[in-house]
Amino acid sequence: MTHTFINQIEAGQAIDDIFLVKEPILRSTTRGDLYIAMYLCDRTGQLNGRMWQATEAIYNALPKPGFVHIQGRSEIYQNNLQIIINNISIVDTSKVCLDDFLPRTEKDTEKLFKEVKDILSRIKNSQLKALVDEFLADDELMKKFKTAPAAIKLHHNYLGGLLEHTHNTLNVALAVLPFYPQVQQELVLAAIFLHDIGKTEELTYDMSFSYTNTGQLLGHIAQALLMIKQKAGRLEAKGKKIEENIMDSLNHIILSHHGRYEFGSPKLPATPEAFLVNYIDDLDAKLYQVTTAIDNESSDSDWTSWQKALETRLYRKRIEQ
Amino acid sequence: MTHTFINQIEAGQAIDDIFLVKEPILRSTTRGDLYIAMYLCDRTGQLNGRMWQATEAIYNALPKPGFVHIQGRSEIYQNNLQIIINNISIVDTSKVCLDDFLPRTEKDTEKLFKEVKDILSRIKNSQLKALVDEFLADDELMKKFKTAPAAIKLHHNYLGGLLEHTHNTLNVALAVLPFYPQVQQELVLAAIFLHDIGKTEELTYDMSFSYTNTGQLLGHIAQALLMIKQKAGRLEAKGKKIEENIMDSLNHIILSHHGRYEFGSPKLPATPEAFLVNYIDDLDAKLYQVTTAIDNESSDSDWTSWQKALETRLYRKRIEQ
Amino acid sequence: MTHTFINQIEAGQAIDDIFLVKEPILRSTTRGDLYIAMYLCDRTGQLNGRMWQATEAIYNALPKPGFVHIQGRSEIYQNNLQIIINNISIVDTSKVCLDDFLPRTEKDTEKLFKEVKDILSRIKNSQLKALVDEFLADDELMKKFKTAPAAIKLHHNYLGGLLEHTHNTLNVALAVLPFYPQVQQELVLAAIFLHDIGKTEELTYDMSFSYTNTGQLLGHIAQALLMIKQKAGRLEAKGKKIEENIMDSLNHIILSHHGRYEFGSPKLPATPEAFLVNYIDDLDAKLYQVTTAIDNESSDSDWTSWQKALETRLYRKRIEQ
Amino acid sequence: MTHTFINQIEAGQAIDDIFLVKEPILRSTTRGDLYIAMYLCDRTGQLNGRMWQATEAIYNALPKPGFVHIQGRSEIYQNNLQIIINNISIVDTSKVCLDDFLPRTEKDTEKLFKEVKDILSRIKNSQLKALVDEFLADDELMKKFKTAPAAIKLHHNYLGGLLEHTHNTLNVALAVLPFYPQVQQELVLAAIFLHDIGKTEELTYDMSFSYTNTGQLLGHIAQALLMIKQKAGRLEAKGKKIEENIMDSLNHIILSHHGRYEFGSPKLPATPEAFLVNYIDDLDAKLYQVTTAIDNESSDSDWTSWQKALETRLYRKRIEQ
Amino acid sequence: MTHTFINQIEAGQAIDDIFLVKEPILRSTTRGDLYIAMYLCDRTGQLNGRMWQATEAIYNALPKPGFVHIQGRSEIYQNNLQIIINNISIVDTSKVCLDDFLPRTEKDTEKLFKEVKDILSRIKNSQLKALVDEFLADDELMKKFKTAPAAIKLHHNYLGGLLEHTHNTLNVALAVLPFYPQVQQELVLAAIFLHDIGKTEELTYDMSFSYTNTGQLLGHIAQALLMIKQKAGRLEAKGKKIEENIMDSLNHIILSHHGRYEFGSPKLPATPEAFLVNYIDDLDAKLYQVTTAIDNESSDSDWTSWQKALETRLYRKRIEQ
Amino acid sequence: MTHTFINQIEAGQAIDDIFLVKEPILRSTTRGDLYIAMYLCDRTGQLNGRMWQATEAIYNALPKPGFVHIQGRSEIYQNNLQIIINNISIVDTSKVCLDDFLPRTEKDTEKLFKEVKDILSRIKNSQLKALVDEFLADDELMKKFKTAPAAIKLHHNYLGGLLEHTHNTLNVALAVLPFYPQVQQELVLAAIFLHDIGKTEELTYDMSFSYTNTGQLLGHIAQALLMIKQKAGRLEAKGKKIEENIMDSLNHIILSHHGRYEFGSPKLPATPEAFLVNYIDDLDAKLYQVTTAIDNESSDSDWTSWQKALETRLYRKRIEQ
Repeated sequence: MTHTFINQIEAGQAIDDIFLVKEPILRSTTRGDLYIAMYLCDRTGQLNGRMWQATEAIYNALPKPGFVHIQGRSEIYQNNLQIIINNISIVDTSKVCLDDFLPRTEKDTEKLFKEVKDILSRIKNSQLKALVDEFLADDELMKKFKTAPAAIKLHHNYLGGLLEHTHNTLNVALAVLPFYPQVQQELVLAAIFLHDIGKTEELTYDMSFSYTNTGQLLGHIAQALLMIKQKAGRLEAKGKKIEENIMDSLNHIILSHHGRYEFGSPKLPATPEAFLVNYIDDLDAKLYQVTTAIDNESSDSDWTSWQKALETRLYRKRIEQ
Repeated sequence: MTHTFINQIEAGQAIDDIFLVKEPILRSTTRGDLYIAMYLCDRTGQLNGRMWQATEAIYNALPKPGFVHIQGRSEIYQNNLQIIINNISIVDTSKVCLDDFLPRTEKDTEKLFKEVKDILSRIKNSQLKALVDEFLADDELMKKFKTAPAAIKLHHNYLGGLLEHTHNTLNVALAVLPFYPQVQQELVLAAIFLHDIGKTEELTYDMSFSYTNTGQLLGHIAQALLMIKQKAGRLEAKGKKIEENIMDSLNHIILSHHGRYEFGSPKLPATPEAFLVNYIDDLDAKLYQVTTAIDNESSDSDWTSWQKALETRLYRKRIEQ
Repeated sequence: MTHTFINQIEAGQAIDDIFLVKEPILRSTTRGDLYIAMYLCDRTGQLNGRMWQATEAIYNALPKPGFVHIQGRSEIYQNNLQIIINNISIVDTSKVCLDDFLPRTEKDTEKLFKEVKDILSRIKNSQLKALVDEFLADDELMKKFKTAPAAIKLHHNYLGGLLEHTHNTLNVALAVLPFYPQVQQELVLAAIFLHDIGKTEELTYDMSFSYTNTGQLLGHIAQALLMIKQKAGRLEAKGKKIEENIMDSLNHIILSHHGRYEFGSPKLPATPEAFLVNYIDDLDAKLYQVTTAIDNESSDSDWTSWQKALETRLYRKRIEQ
Repeated sequence: MTHTFINQIEAGQAIDDIFLVKEPILRSTTRGDLYIAMYLCDRTGQLNGRMWQATEAIYNALPKPGFVHIQGRSEIYQNNLQIIINNISIVDTSKVCLDDFLPRTEKDTEKLFKEVKDILSRIKNSQLKALVDEFLADDELMKKFKTAPAAIKLHHNYLGGLLEHTHNTLNVALAVLPFYPQVQQELVLAAIFLHDIGKTEELTYDMSFSYTNTGQLLGHIAQALLMIKQKAGRLEAKGKKIEENIMDSLNHIILSHHGRYEFGSPKLPATPEAFLVNYIDDLDAKLYQVTTAIDNESSDSDWTSWQKALETRLYRKRIEQ
Repeated sequence: MTHTFINQIEAGQAIDDIFLVKEPILRSTTRGDLYIAMYLCDRTGQLNGRMWQATEAIYNALPKPGFVHIQGRSEIYQNNLQIIINNISIVDTSKVCLDDFLPRTEKDTEKLFKEVKDILSRIKNSQLKALVDEFLADDELMKKFKTAPAAIKLHHNYLGGLLEHTHNTLNVALAVLPFYPQVQQELVLAAIFLHDIGKTEELTYDMSFSYTNTGQLLGHIAQALLMIKQKAGRLEAKGKKIEENIMDSLNHIILSHHGRYEFGSPKLPATPEAFLVNYIDDLDAKLYQVTTAIDNESSDSDWTSWQKALETRLYRKRIEQ
Repeated sequence: MTHTFINQIEAGQAIDDIFLVKEPILRSTTRGDLYIAMYLCDRTGQLNGRMWQATEAIYNALPKPGFVHIQGRSEIYQNNLQIIINNISIVDTSKVCLDDFLPRTEKDTEKLFKEVKDILSRIKNSQLKALVDEFLADDELMKKFKTAPAAIKLHHNYLGGLLEHTHNTLNVALAVLPFYPQVQQELVLAAIFLHDIGKTEELTYDMSFSYTNTGQLLGHIAQALLMIKQKAGRLEAKGKKIEENIMDSLNHIILSHHGRYEFGSPKLPATPEAFLVNYIDDLDAKLYQVTTAIDNESSDSDWTSWQKALETRLYRKRIEQ
């Protein structure tokens, strides 16, 4: 069954489709009849849903959140589209095409991942190489690495976004490094590969994008350090101890890659490599934000709406055709 | 041999004693003769030392820094006391009474440590208890815990300072907790025990107080998380896995215990326990700073000199006798 | 007549009860008929009220704000409960049970006040004691002290909140002081007793919580200084002059107890006592905020909603049962 | 006896003059002889003084600080001028021409004060007038008002500076008020008269400029409020109570006249009068600083040295002749 | 035809008038009928307009924004007034009385402009005078100077506001300058005349107030410098070169007149003239904001609503009648 | 004559060489003899110079600053090397090898400049190209462009530094642009070429590095805009007007290229090109600072001294050989 996306539904249309239900609430009308209010969502947006003549049993059975099959009709209420639900039944996640519900990169993630591995193969230092390989060999983690978004809102906020952002920053680093020969290339490559690896555990991205408890309590920077320690521990158990200076230099880049205390870095950059990674990471995130805001502006204006995180509106007019 | 402390040396005195030598430099006089300038230190201060008629061999043999036996004489030069060195010989650290060279708590550290253990024995939660016991059972680490200072400059900056600060904050927590029954006591006690444990590795304190490379690159907050992960890993290897919620709650307190991003905490307090530990830690450090500055003021003024970190001078006059 | 609280009213219910009316407005319908829109409030919340077929005379007679007796009916309008008013009459404040309209501490304020006095009886310094006793002997002020909230929004924002906050901070101070023997206990106790005394005049709390003109123009810190000066003036008139050093030391603690310029303290703490009072006051206020936000969270989430003043959401999951 | 000013003393000159002695210290030479090091000051600067062959008795008798009669000789030591003292005797302050030791306004303070009173005579509001008159009638306070500096360092830092600054800001206010007819003139005039009155008690200015204990603990803003309360209390005792709105409006201007929390104002301006006084006060202080720095620059450069408080150097070249 | 202002329209009234239409949108009802939603505006406010039974052709013909003649009826919908449109036709801007649509100063702009020129005639320095005259002789620019608002929102935000603000600050400068004889008067007058001249090009003010593209990309400070350079270029072409020191001194005042980096000044004031212009400009803008907020407060409260830019509410009660 | 550099002079050496003299002062000894104190400088450092038995005539003839021929001898005085001058004579700047006195890039500036022109030849947009060519055709300006330093202190602070920094950032931009196809390449290249062009006029770099008056009053950002306006004016005079959108887009990048208000940008980046230029400029400057500080550290420590602008010390230990 092809999914009809929420941003394509018009008023007065019959609905027979799967949606993600969020925050259902059981209420009673003035006359005492029970009804359920809820949000029905897919990756293009969300609508209010109303099921009149509901029962407590129906309400209790609903996932909060989860996937449901809805039969009903769309209508305009107070200038907004809503969906009147006649029938609702629960759908197992395994039967759902998740791509309909979560935005996903348009790029080929297997190709991106292969290119990431190719770039990382330039690392010859045996200890750094062993550490990077230990990560690459963790299939479960690499699956998450290929799936996770890079953020909930600000940049690359779609499935595969983490990989895409990592891939892009690795390429930018390779392009820039020749102009700064004193910067240690292998350390930069390993650090970029791992700088946001903690996001695989900081975020959830199975039904919608949010933070895990651990993610919110520790943050992806601290989580990355703990993940690296675990991999290093396994290497040590195999007789391959990574020397302290390498561990410190790598961990320092990750700790400081946000560049400023108020952005959650407990240490400021103190090595050339840490500065380079901080700038390239920030550049890639900001250019994503800026160009996406320009592309997505719905009005015809020469300017986007106010971008709070950037403290400005953005100018959309080009000089080149 | 009893050490004559630097703050007791007067002009014109014969010197035959052990000092810590720092930053020796070989120079030549206008006439081309070589001499060595250096600092001679103990825990009460430092003086300039000058060895005229020196040789490159003597210079090369000097530890930088390290302990030396000095024979010579004190004199006033340009209003400052300095020491003219006739003979200098290297002294093995093992033969030195370190207490003469590094300030040390006046309290009985074994007694303090026993009281810390007594307080920690209130922890009944089996997982938290296992984790705390794993730390207490690490003799080498506990030796460092009893020896390390709590900081290089700001507070409890002497051998045993970390233990004294931990002991004091544990006691304050015990006194305050009854007034906040919703705060989880055992979590607070474990977190206070471990909140500065990273300082055992962040700082060096064998000859003088400074930062290790790892300490400066990572900081004691990140180091504490890695140390806890290691202990938890050992427990897991013994079949005693600590559940995620306990690890997260404890790690969060440690990450956020500086209370503000600009003080190096990558996360702000988000649990009652994290708030309590942040306040008690800060209170203990600040009251140490304030009362020490008041006690140590050398003038008779009602006010101390300007305290940069506190953005004020401190008032020394009391209303009580 | 027992008051039915607003958070217990359901749709379609007959209403015959007293409410606090706020912000009544006279409007006309499309057909030119007059009606009055208003808020009807008690301590559990507020609802829209609508009186159709109103007259200008009815409107003019309404208190703005004040207490009214309402007869009418509840109904749902646009998904929200509102009250249709058939009859409205003014009620004298003296006949109203104020506890129904303003939240109030659940503790026994007379008991708390007695304990406060017991703690203050530890003050032996004759001048401090005279000053504290002068406050305690001011029955009118002490009545306000027992009634006032500690704040409009952030913490202890209910009748009796000022007393409860003062009681709690006095107890915490008593518990903590033994660990800091250099801190002058009697000065701390007197200062905590008086640190927020200005709130008795900064806030109004007869019908709802808001600021007085004086409170908004001067703030409770400046008001406290003026109140202390007045009491000291009376003591001086009785031949009991308080010496300058005591007045200054006490006033300084009050001026600096918010700890930072941007929180409205014109002076930063410059005595051990000022630091201690600042920390204990802040700790008590923050732990109230944190534990209350955790308790009051209406969702089942592990996290509260975003707490703007704390710049974080709060984690609600405990490790202890 | 005419005083030879310190900035006119040359090397090799016989000295027989009165100086302010500061921070005398008793020291011993290499050979064990006692000598006294001290600063000798007047309003043009300070020099090191050395009295060889001193005794403990001489040292103990010295004021710390205070005036002394010195007989000796000037010499160059290590590129700096110093004074070798042969004889030192204490001089009573009453016999000293204070103008030699503290900088003083070049204006006629009696004339300035008369003009201030003339301007204040425009206040017709009976209560404001009564309050202002109560201050004007306090001869002791008015004597201080005419003598105090306006600050220790930043602006009008000389005897009479407070009066000069107050006089100037009153005149500027009179000139500006016609363009802002909604601003209440009488309130502005009274507030400017009193805005820095607390400086009479915040600062000491008998031998040198510094802070009193009360001044440092409370600050001139809080002190002004207490002084106004005292005057209002006396008026009330005479049956002339000042109404609350007037007291609040006046006090608010004083509390907020520094304009920003970080400059020590616990309240931000919230009335047109408070804004006007804040701007005029700041303008007068800043223009004093700027023009004085430009005038006093000792080099021939087009630019002054770096002005830390202004975060810039100042340009000295004019376009007009 | 006299315009009936939006703030005078009542429910149930026939409408036959010109309005400014903004943001028209074509929508379809539940039944599939097309309608147009839009805002109808004049200088007193805006209302929702609804045209049922609309066509795509009507929608396409509408200006976005622009002036239209509306025939229809007012009604209350969901407690808000809206206008039901029966007929809509486009009106040429030339036939519209713009004063009905944009707020305008109540002062006589020709009289203000003449007074500005009178004040500027005090400038005798031949180069400054030539530059100022070059601006005054540019009729097209002077027309804009008399028409432009001084800002979109914060102060003098109405046609003629720029002239009124410039006129007022020139007068305040003239009143204040005598008290600061070191400040170069002619430079101050020229700088005030030109300090906001860039606003003639930074803002649009033909149908509503907003920013031009250039204005948003460069800002009126940089624009002013470019305009001055252009005028100076023309003078140079006429053989009247302005010397560098005069250009720099004038440009510096304009660059620094916002006084702080975060307010968009790339340089901080570094001359007495720059400080004076900064203070007078800020004073005039702030007093406009403050007194306007006090006058426009719609409630009877002693306080205005919260003023975000001033971080306070404003007190409205006066002490004078 | 080969110059002996200051950092190679040893004590007791005969001196017969050219130096830059700075800040000469005429003083008199205790015995009343005149002498001149001065600094003698070259690009490796500065020493104190002393000319005993000087006359006022010699002093008056000295350049302040300028080049002089010195004959004399080096000696140690108070542990510092100084030069005793027997003969001093003025040297014309034209006869001086400036490279001895000002540090200079080690790169071939003609080659760098050719590569810059090659990169700029990629600009095909006829208007941008015309503007860039107008700059390239200004031989006098291009000579300065090849000579100027990029800054006085922080980065590329040597002759040719501006060109080297511009060359490097152009190359980095070319390397990075392919990964951000939405960013307009030609605009970026033109903007990078011109982003610091104002430094040719902001700084002086004939005898030492400092600011011009215009530079200090306006800053290189405003100066660049004025220079571009001048070139555009000349093009317009030739019938080649640059359209507003291109001028605005280019000027905006220059205005915002410091990225933050507090760094002197009056506008924040609002186009993708502005973000890219800001990041690349900052990256190049910071990596210069960081790697230079690491290379120049004189001690053997693993860490550099504290870097104030970076708020950290820098780690010097590498993981690669």
